Amino acid sequence: MPDQPRTIVIGMLGCGVVGSGTLRALQENAAAIERQLNARLVVKKVCVRSIDKPRAVDLPRSLFTTDASEVLDDPEVQVVAELIGGIDPAGGYIQRALRNGKHVVTANKELIAKQGTQLLEEAAERQRDFYFEGAVAGGIPIIRALKVSLAANRVQEVMGIVNGTTNYILTQMAENGLDFGVALAEAQAKGYAEADPTDDVDGFDAAYKLAILASIAFHARVPLERIYHEGIRGVTDLDIRYARELGYAIKLVAIAKERAEGLELRVHPAMLPKSHPLASVNDVFNAVYVRGNAVGEVMFYGRGAGSLPTGSSVTGDLLEVARGILKGGSARISQTHYAERPVVPIEAIESNYYVRTLTDDKPGVLASIATCFGNNGVSLESVLQKQGHDVSAEIVWITHRTSEGALRGALRDIEALPVVRKIANWIRVEE
Amino acid sequence: MPDQPRTIVIGMLGCGVVGSGTLRALQENAAAIERQLNARLVVKKVCVRSIDKPRAVDLPRSLFTTDASEVLDDPEVQVVAELIGGIDPAGGYIQRALRNGKHVVTANKELIAKQGTQLLEEAAERQRDFYFEGAVAGGIPIIRALKVSLAANRVQEVMGIVNGTTNYILTQMAENGLDFGVALAEAQAKGYAEADPTDDVDGFDAAYKLAILASIAFHARVPLERIYHEGIRGVTDLDIRYARELGYAIKLVAIAKERAEGLELRVHPAMLPKSHPLASVNDVFNAVYVRGNAVGEVMFYGRGAGSLPTGSSVTGDLLEVARGILKGGSARISQTHYAERPVVPIEAIESNYYVRTLTDDKPGVLASIATCFGNNGVSLESVLQKQGHDVSAEIVWITHRTSEGALRGALRDIEALPVVRKIANWIRVEE
Repeated sequence: MPDQPRTIVIGMLGCGVVGSGTLRALQENAAAIERQLNARLVVKKVCVRSIDKPRAVDLPRSLFTTDASEVLDDPEVQVVAELIGGIDPAGGYIQRALRNGKHVVTANKELIAKQGTQLLEEAAERQRDFYFEGAVAGGIPIIRALKVSLAANRVQEVMGIVNGTTNYILTQMAENGLDFGVALAEAQAKGYAEADPTDDVDGFDAAYKLAILASIAFHARVPLERIYHEGIRGVTDLDIRYARELGYAIKLVAIAKERAEGLELRVHPAMLPKSHPLASVNDVFNAVYVRGNAVGEVMFYGRGAGSLPTGSSVTGDLLEVARGILKGGSARISQTHYAERPVVPIEAIESNYYVRTLTDDKPGVLASIATCFGNNGVSLESVLQKQGHDVSAEIVWITHRTSEGALRGALRDIEALPVVRKIANWIRVEE
Repeated sequence: MPDQPRTIVIGMLGCGVVGSGTLRALQENAAAIERQLNARLVVKKVCVRSIDKPRAVDLPRSLFTTDASEVLDDPEVQVVAELIGGIDPAGGYIQRALRNGKHVVTANKELIAKQGTQLLEEAAERQRDFYFEGAVAGGIPIIRALKVSLAANRVQEVMGIVNGTTNYILTQMAENGLDFGVALAEAQAKGYAEADPTDDVDGFDAAYKLAILASIAFHARVPLERIYHEGIRGVTDLDIRYARELGYAIKLVAIAKERAEGLELRVHPAMLPKSHPLASVNDVFNAVYVRGNAVGEVMFYGRGAGSLPTGSSVTGDLLEVARGILKGGSARISQTHYAERPVVPIEAIESNYYVRTLTDDKPGVLASIATCFGNNGVSLESVLQKQGHDVSAEIVWITHRTSEGALRGALRDIEALPVVRKIANWIRVEE
């Protein structure tokens, strides 16, 4: 006779988008999960702000509480799933859970980006599992891939489309010729963007995720404030159209690159050649591209947000915690932020650049701008004279690979030219 | 003071393409591996057929032996990496290693496809780890993703481009208008195809990989002989050209789909719409697309073969075995082939179809063929009259979704029409 299935007791904090997705994944796939583990995952309590709020998942009222200690201090609870988000009170709750001997699973990107190192240390000291697959790129299993499957690689580069909201907006702009404001309003109407869209459109959310990815890929603590970030508010439909004519797509990318001098860490819109695996990642989809010294190039693609996809990652983590409890070997994947890596300032990164200038429509303008590039050591790959508006002329410049310091020097000189009305935009071009 | 790093002793069988890639990954990333594990992975012996053969990796002669018992029966060896390939003697060696209490890592797709269930049972009985990430899609971490990260999903579909050789040939045919024979010869000249290319071009290799993927995705034993497989010898440059005109790419796909009646398991060329994530996977790259009831769609992309990419997967497995030895919890991921799933016969699968007919160039031909489709309950999505050759006419038909039995019935009737010279080709269209 097979052994009686054992029970693993879970306590949950939060029952919003991710919490209800996790509960649904646990409910709908309960039989398969039990067969795999020969154990049941049982949610004993769910702590919420308001018990009477309607939920996307059907559960008895008695399962809910508004008192976090019924989750955190119940000795029967073996695993805490923190799905509240934000720093406070989530951070304190996780610490309390670890100190009470519980394993922890979370999808809290902001918290991991800001306090991940300390929390991982706390977990390692207490020999508890602390997993956060859902914190980056929703359902895409990128964290475990980096920590386990690709662990034998020296990672050289991670580049990701890790924010679904901005990718949806940029896709709408590209496919339907919308301008940023209209596409944003549409994303808000569909529930893809918040009423206050700052976190997404200004690149904060992508920076959190990059901090997490880079810290794992490079085994280094990555201070969030050292990540350069720019959002997509400055991208116009005109830039997207010109990008397409030149064979590129514009995406908000999060890049971490290893260089001899240190790490490049940056989030900004970039032009990607159509042949790049990330260039065809559209709508709310996310993808993370990794280059390692053994594996070469790999890419992971899927739904970067949403209730069930993120719930899939959280539940996958819960199963892995359960295996540790059942079979031993908790805290196998420990803190590996052992490397001290300086961060390269943004002026020292190297890239190709797209520059769009608006000038007077006069002879000699092109030569005088080209001279500014040359004086700053920036060489040009191509120049496209576009249709002028009224009496102005629009010129699009693509540079060869250069340091951003040199490019910015050239832009300052160009802006000072009397014939130049303005530098309408400039965007990094990743090859 | 930190603990002295412990040592994990590895014995290796085989030092060909994958073996030397594994040794290089272990050598080049030794410092990072030691920091992650606080342990050294030391290869004590490598069993090869000929000690004097030149190797792609620089190792002392004393490391090599031609006597497998120096690996399998040495009590110091804790993990055996089987990188010989094939059934015999690899299968016997793995069994002997497990019986001697060793953990096992392999990249042997044929062996896992044919004897995986028994070997996994043997490993589970003895509480040993048995990993084979390198057996499917080279460096792409798809096995662990399915077994761990996506474990909370009921998988509904797995579709992969899992053979690099045929993908290279089809890409060459599509991009340079080559015919199959020329593209094959080129692949052979580049070392991407064997002198006897049967295993790749006739779909055997892809069938092995599908057997492994499906057994994990559906928790079922998947008998290799129940997988329908067709290779790419019948795909012509004309089919590829027409596919492109219709907005499709032709790829050799391995498909496992869950249906109420059982599993669809099939390897064959298929037309994929350009917007499908697999359609733009070119050259020797592999990709595996998974649809799960929580995660939705995810895709994994990377190098499906080669020394270092596959070595990356094997070494990742060795690290995971090491974690089990160091932290406890070996054999956490056990055999989960608990489900009995019937296999749907190929006639019962459902798909859209591309059919290319060569007929006499006479009035009424189109109507009589269309009648055959209709009589068999096959409805048509589009019909394209192509340029005829000499006095014959070529017609391309795309059907709506239908059962393959109905389609084959229609093809038999069409072939019997006196005006039909031949059915030049027919290809499944996956939407």
